[in-house]
Amino acid sequence: MTVAKADPALVEKLVIANRILYDQGIVDGLGHVSVRHDVLPDLFLLSCNRAPGLVVRDDIVCYDLDGHAVTETQERPYLERFIHSEIYRMRPDVVAVVHSHSSSVIPFGVTGNRLRPIYHMAGFLGSGSSHFEIRDAGGNTDMLIRNPSLGKALATSLGAHTCVLMRGHGSTVVGNSIEQVVYRAIYAETNAKLQAQSMSMGTVNYLTEEEAELAAAANDGQIGRSWNLWQRRIGAI
Amino acid sequence: MTVAKADPALVEKLVIANRILYDQGIVDGLGHVSVRHDVLPDLFLLSCNRAPGLVVRDDIVCYDLDGHAVTETQERPYLERFIHSEIYRMRPDVVAVVHSHSSSVIPFGVTGNRLRPIYHMAGFLGSGSSHFEIRDAGGNTDMLIRNPSLGKALATSLGAHTCVLMRGHGSTVVGNSIEQVVYRAIYAETNAKLQAQSMSMGTVNYLTEEEAELAAAANDGQIGRSWNLWQRRIGAI
Amino acid sequence: MTVAKADPALVEKLVIANRILYDQGIVDGLGHVSVRHDVLPDLFLLSCNRAPGLVVRDDIVCYDLDGHAVTETQERPYLERFIHSEIYRMRPDVVAVVHSHSSSVIPFGVTGNRLRPIYHMAGFLGSGSSHFEIRDAGGNTDMLIRNPSLGKALATSLGAHTCVLMRGHGSTVVGNSIEQVVYRAIYAETNAKLQAQSMSMGTVNYLTEEEAELAAAANDGQIGRSWNLWQRRIGAI
Amino acid sequence: MTVAKADPALVEKLVIANRILYDQGIVDGLGHVSVRHDVLPDLFLLSCNRAPGLVVRDDIVCYDLDGHAVTETQERPYLERFIHSEIYRMRPDVVAVVHSHSSSVIPFGVTGNRLRPIYHMAGFLGSGSSHFEIRDAGGNTDMLIRNPSLGKALATSLGAHTCVLMRGHGSTVVGNSIEQVVYRAIYAETNAKLQAQSMSMGTVNYLTEEEAELAAAANDGQIGRSWNLWQRRIGAI
Repeated sequence: MTVAKADPALVEKLVIANRILYDQGIVDGLGHVSVRHDVLPDLFLLSCNRAPGLVVRDDIVCYDLDGHAVTETQERPYLERFIHSEIYRMRPDVVAVVHSHSSSVIPFGVTGNRLRPIYHMAGFLGSGSSHFEIRDAGGNTDMLIRNPSLGKALATSLGAHTCVLMRGHGSTVVGNSIEQVVYRAIYAETNAKLQAQSMSMGTVNYLTEEEAELAAAANDGQIGRSWNLWQRRIGAI
Repeated sequence: MTVAKADPALVEKLVIANRILYDQGIVDGLGHVSVRHDVLPDLFLLSCNRAPGLVVRDDIVCYDLDGHAVTETQERPYLERFIHSEIYRMRPDVVAVVHSHSSSVIPFGVTGNRLRPIYHMAGFLGSGSSHFEIRDAGGNTDMLIRNPSLGKALATSLGAHTCVLMRGHGSTVVGNSIEQVVYRAIYAETNAKLQAQSMSMGTVNYLTEEEAELAAAANDGQIGRSWNLWQRRIGAI
Repeated sequence: MTVAKADPALVEKLVIANRILYDQGIVDGLGHVSVRHDVLPDLFLLSCNRAPGLVVRDDIVCYDLDGHAVTETQERPYLERFIHSEIYRMRPDVVAVVHSHSSSVIPFGVTGNRLRPIYHMAGFLGSGSSHFEIRDAGGNTDMLIRNPSLGKALATSLGAHTCVLMRGHGSTVVGNSIEQVVYRAIYAETNAKLQAQSMSMGTVNYLTEEEAELAAAANDGQIGRSWNLWQRRIGAI
Repeated sequence: MTVAKADPALVEKLVIANRILYDQGIVDGLGHVSVRHDVLPDLFLLSCNRAPGLVVRDDIVCYDLDGHAVTETQERPYLERFIHSEIYRMRPDVVAVVHSHSSSVIPFGVTGNRLRPIYHMAGFLGSGSSHFEIRDAGGNTDMLIRNPSLGKALATSLGAHTCVLMRGHGSTVVGNSIEQVVYRAIYAETNAKLQAQSMSMGTVNYLTEEEAELAAAANDGQIGRSWNLWQRRIGAI
């Protein structure tokens, strides 16, 4: 038993999310997506140390909030599972987490620019992304969130936001479902690309906070349409 | 009967247009294309709430100019069908409409830059795109054209143009046939990409209005060549 | 007989060149490639009005230097065959011609920047591309080279260069073989992309004319390696 | 016997490396990857003059440090095998070498900008890339490293670095294994793309040297995960 009685449909959806994130270019060999256990909220599901595009059902492991595997596994874990554990600990509202190095987002983190919503698709960015500087938390490191202490510092930087930029590393987004967090990872990347282009062309008229909030709510009702397409592309339906 | 006696070949062409727009990267899970009914000009054909790349024959629904389905359907409609209905109402010359979030166009809308024709392929842009600011029409909204009133405001901003940029949202192009509107959606995106690059390199020598008009007429005679290719790519011929 | 006793292997290579240019993203539905007849130098071979990616053996037509078909064909010709005819007339050294709208090159033409060789692969650009302004030759037009007079003006602008930028339209490259002209079309596009990026990053150290000349000669001996790959990609070998 | 008793698994891995570099867009028809012989350190393995994406087992030739083939072959060698031979001679720690024209790196070489590590994935760039100006070594040339003297000059410019930019040509990276050098070639390209974007957006906060060193060590333990994916993509596993 590798997933501590989690709903098999949830495990299957997590596998699909891994493959969608790879197909959509959000992750390459690295990056990961997790989901909180459906009945035991102090546990979460995450693949073993596998490239997301190759993840299968048997790779999914169940971890507790200290990052310890609670299901038997012979496989190495992701070094950075503490990104997930500490966010789940600090943010009871969060059900799913994606960590990636998606490329258009990186330049924002290293130049201290915030992501802000260029268009309705990125309404979830609301008043902007937050920023995490690992030097403040750990001095000179290998940049990885490889222990609970760094995970806690990251979760603190995330605060109540939906997206935190990690300087010199990547970014992490959170959501209330697997579908929503995948959507957010994809459109954080798209928004970053569009925002950088827009910034080079003139003064940008961003969504207001109210527009962003209203758009985010409207989009949540439409995710199924895109999810359907993303599944079809990878042959999952 | 789902399409109120519309020509089956027209319905089939609309399905193909959906898939071409996806294959060409103009739409992702969102966006839509419609065509005016061939014998009943106060009706138009549009897919139900489906990702364009997945649209099939049975998804096509017939709507009146108030956005009400006039053929039986169990499926949800697109929230933004009023983009189409109000443009068809205000512009009797328009036979087909594409609404998309095609990526290179977005930065123009949010920075207040107009699309202008960089090259002959975009002659249809003539004296430039028009601009729609939804705040003027509806204050803070979720950015969607979700009722006739906003649709009318958008159609008014479109005016006699072929393309209207929707700030913080996307764009809409119109044409006198499915083939022409698909062509225009593809080359509005291409022109936007080239225009942004050109603007960063120096002073741009745009087509004059007369050049644009002459080029647009010449291109209209050549669309079949590209349409042939686009169909072949998706396996439609 | 559609090709006036041209070497069948040459005709086949022209078909392959059409498909390679499409596979490599140099042409979309438009653009064309021709080759001078192997035994009758006042004739050249060019497809009928077909998207290059779809060209097959029977599409190849033989034209004289006035742009008249000398082989029987029921198909429409390319409007712009005079690009080819007039260059073959003015430049006896030219054996093959590619006209395209390849995207990275367009911004140079509309901003009056010359292509210059960023790296050895583009040594053939030597002292730079030449520039063609159709307004000087024909006033306000539809931008197309649709008659011998405009073709002659274009060939004059090309002069002794290997590449001419056509403002608001595209570009044309010439070579001494099909393989060489395909190579040049591909690397003119690549060089344009790299040159634009380099120009935005600082002062560019271009190849000197001597470096360019030496590099061009060296590369000519290596084209076979790439041609092999390009053929393999389209399944031609 | 074409590879002088080299481990067949090493030869096979070199073939796979060629195909991965093509699949990942680091090489096109040109570029090459070599590995030092596993038992005879004054020899190295390199394909004959073949596009990397087409290299098969029988293409691999064994060369000595003067660039002479020590296994029988009827095939032409790469003109630039001296890049490899002279680096292996000067850097006993180097086990594998990739030379490419990967596109995002070129603008750095021609504008005199150094690659510096934007994020942990490029920790191997440490204090930055070194720069090679072939004019200093050979005056006006065809830009190719076509003899031992130019190879020695390049190796001298490389020094103790992991990556050397070759003005007007491309770049070369070195590593302590095939997997590591492939990883470095891929992420040198990615870092270059991200660095250029970041430089256009503001002041860049690069990894410190200590961060880079720690990150490089951490990444070396994770290359297997990506290698697994890269192999799967080309059907090698």
